[in-house]
Amino acid sequence: MSATSTSRLLARRARLLGPNVSTFYDEPVHLVKGKGVWVWDADGNRYLDCYNNVPHVGHCHPRVVDAICQQASTLNTHTRYLHEGILDYVERLAATFDAPLATAIMTCTGSEANDIALRMAEAVTGKRGVIATDHTYHGNTTAVAQLSRTNVPGTGDGSHVRHVPAPDSYRPLGGVAGPAHARAFAAKVEEAIDDLETSGPGFSAIILCPAFLNEGFPQLEPGWLDPVVKVVRKAGGVFIADEVQPGFGRNGYRFWGHQRIGVQPDIVTLGKPMGNGHPVAGVVADADIMAAFRKSFRYFNTFGGNPVSCAAAMAVLDVMEDEGLQDNARVVGEHARAGLSKLAEKHDCIGDVRGYGLFFGAELVTDRETRSPATSYATKVANEMRRRGILLNKLGLHYNTLKIRPPMPFSKENADYMLGTLDGVLNDLGPARD
Amino acid sequence: MSATSTSRLLARRARLLGPNVSTFYDEPVHLVKGKGVWVWDADGNRYLDCYNNVPHVGHCHPRVVDAICQQASTLNTHTRYLHEGILDYVERLAATFDAPLATAIMTCTGSEANDIALRMAEAVTGKRGVIATDHTYHGNTTAVAQLSRTNVPGTGDGSHVRHVPAPDSYRPLGGVAGPAHARAFAAKVEEAIDDLETSGPGFSAIILCPAFLNEGFPQLEPGWLDPVVKVVRKAGGVFIADEVQPGFGRNGYRFWGHQRIGVQPDIVTLGKPMGNGHPVAGVVADADIMAAFRKSFRYFNTFGGNPVSCAAAMAVLDVMEDEGLQDNARVVGEHARAGLSKLAEKHDCIGDVRGYGLFFGAELVTDRETRSPATSYATKVANEMRRRGILLNKLGLHYNTLKIRPPMPFSKENADYMLGTLDGVLNDLGPARD
Repeated sequence: MSATSTSRLLARRARLLGPNVSTFYDEPVHLVKGKGVWVWDADGNRYLDCYNNVPHVGHCHPRVVDAICQQASTLNTHTRYLHEGILDYVERLAATFDAPLATAIMTCTGSEANDIALRMAEAVTGKRGVIATDHTYHGNTTAVAQLSRTNVPGTGDGSHVRHVPAPDSYRPLGGVAGPAHARAFAAKVEEAIDDLETSGPGFSAIILCPAFLNEGFPQLEPGWLDPVVKVVRKAGGVFIADEVQPGFGRNGYRFWGHQRIGVQPDIVTLGKPMGNGHPVAGVVADADIMAAFRKSFRYFNTFGGNPVSCAAAMAVLDVMEDEGLQDNARVVGEHARAGLSKLAEKHDCIGDVRGYGLFFGAELVTDRETRSPATSYATKVANEMRRRGILLNKLGLHYNTLKIRPPMPFSKENADYMLGTLDGVLNDLGPARD
Repeated sequence: MSATSTSRLLARRARLLGPNVSTFYDEPVHLVKGKGVWVWDADGNRYLDCYNNVPHVGHCHPRVVDAICQQASTLNTHTRYLHEGILDYVERLAATFDAPLATAIMTCTGSEANDIALRMAEAVTGKRGVIATDHTYHGNTTAVAQLSRTNVPGTGDGSHVRHVPAPDSYRPLGGVAGPAHARAFAAKVEEAIDDLETSGPGFSAIILCPAFLNEGFPQLEPGWLDPVVKVVRKAGGVFIADEVQPGFGRNGYRFWGHQRIGVQPDIVTLGKPMGNGHPVAGVVADADIMAAFRKSFRYFNTFGGNPVSCAAAMAVLDVMEDEGLQDNARVVGEHARAGLSKLAEKHDCIGDVRGYGLFFGAELVTDRETRSPATSYATKVANEMRRRGILLNKLGLHYNTLKIRPPMPFSKENADYMLGTLDGVLNDLGPARD
């Protein structure tokens, strides 16, 4: 795409959407078409999408599109009339969870789901204090944005929120990864609980992405969260698992992130990949928590659980199953991480290779011994990959970790193509100095 | 639909969605199909939809369905890539507003839009106090639910919210409708402003549906809100117009509710009818307010403004224009209200006929002199209308006002059919005793 058209679009954005509306890359991409793991820009250039988890079963998957078209041309209405679509979907969804997680509220966005989850915890505990990590993101409503330290604070004093240090398997709290790190993290949570209990709001809930994806997806083995869950339960608190990113089979091993790490949350929130791009999300809880919420709060969502959203979400589950996409995530993810580790033998900047299934990446450092983050180098890598037709990005505690989170039909061949390009980019950029 | 299948569906709902998930009517309707102003239940019975404003241009309008299918099969992604869909839509939308309302944030729900609007006001004023009416509803997020007195309170103390008595043209504050009523309402707002300013949070914004639709759509002539706007501006506050219900030409006279009553808001929020059922909503403000918000708060909405949502919303504007639906709303609305007034000559229970365009209805009373609300009688009327194939409902300060808010292609013939059925129902039910 010509620089002129890009700057024309950016100028229109600033005029119509306001300032500071973020885009990816030094040269933002103007996308016009998507299919499977591929997207195309306005000039006809093709990109391998290694970033977008929203088109979970692949961009414009024909079965999801057909489901949407079929239902949108038949009926779209709200849940104050009876419709089997929402019931069939919630029944199917509930079957992917371990008992007693068996009831759901359907919303349009993960933010709405987390906003409800906080109120559910309040309904159950009668308290408001919430614990989150210091590098998390759970959404954009006023109540949920207060959980993010990275959010520019403003509304409300957020005095009911406590932040604990995000787990980092590469630089673990206490110095040693594994069970000791898990206990150190749980101790921080216990401190925060005590603080909430003694300072006013009381302890209501902890909300965690069970794979800590925004935090840089630390390598945490099953059982790692057990000490945290123990201190939360002991204090009578609620454990909310935010599955907006790790859910729907992406980790390759189990359908949900919390299942992979081996914990049972009280409330689970869902979002992004649920409808392959159609705005659908939800909250899952057991019948008692749902009843407590419904008793304490009035809640109705006009678009939530409408027949079209449910049809899209159902088609995603169908495709997942019929195309074996959870298995694919495990197999291709393992292959890709092995390839990344192989690249690490050649490139000193790759300090750590991490992830599960099709959410993985490499932490880039200027020095393997000091593990000093190569933050601006990682930005250069993402931009250069984009120029060479590969879309990925970076995240983590130091924003130096390559974030690779492709649509689920990502193949070994796609992985090899991505790795080959990355090899070339690292060769050409040379050592990371930052 | 057999009573057995209804009770089977209700039992599944209770099991899968939890208790207290509201339905309409004594016998909830199980809808399976919609087309234009008609919907069908699972037994093939047809109903005239006189209630649903979400399918704004008609249930399953083929042009909206086509736009969704076309774009969903081409590309659906987020706004961190460039795409012309959101820019073309916001440009077209902005042209329907009076300057300087020219920038927008696209969201998925009206609740998300109002949640942002409150933060915009805070960003501009540096204060948090909000004024709403005591019978309003602005949405379901934690922050927005605090505005509703009818919401079961819970989260947050809501100490930054003040409620003013909802305008009632049939029983006006101060006893006399018109300018005196307007001044009386403005005086209540001024009191609330003073209270907020002296008690801590300060005065940030007033949020009003400019047609007070949940409050029972009082008959308020252009200019009625002028005294309120004056006291708000004098105090340096922000006026948020919630157009989730009255917008998109429904009032028949002007495209927006605030334009009909002749005021210029600082922020406008949009929702329900925007995408004919597709989850799309938004906030419109001037460039300064948008910049202040973007400076104070981080905001990104994964599904907000995606190409499919924008295509659906654009198709709605196309259909509105090509089918002359705003004019239709005015002409049919006037015809229907004339018909309702004619029914009032026969039926003493009709105390007041009100509304604009295709949001109108009649307040039912047990006695025209005392204007005593016929609340349970109104419930009977709505249920009996449903049994005779007409879907409408009731609302208002006493829940005794028939709420008639059909899809915009509603015709004079549809109106006459509805009125004929209503005549029969009122005849058969006999006088309202409550």
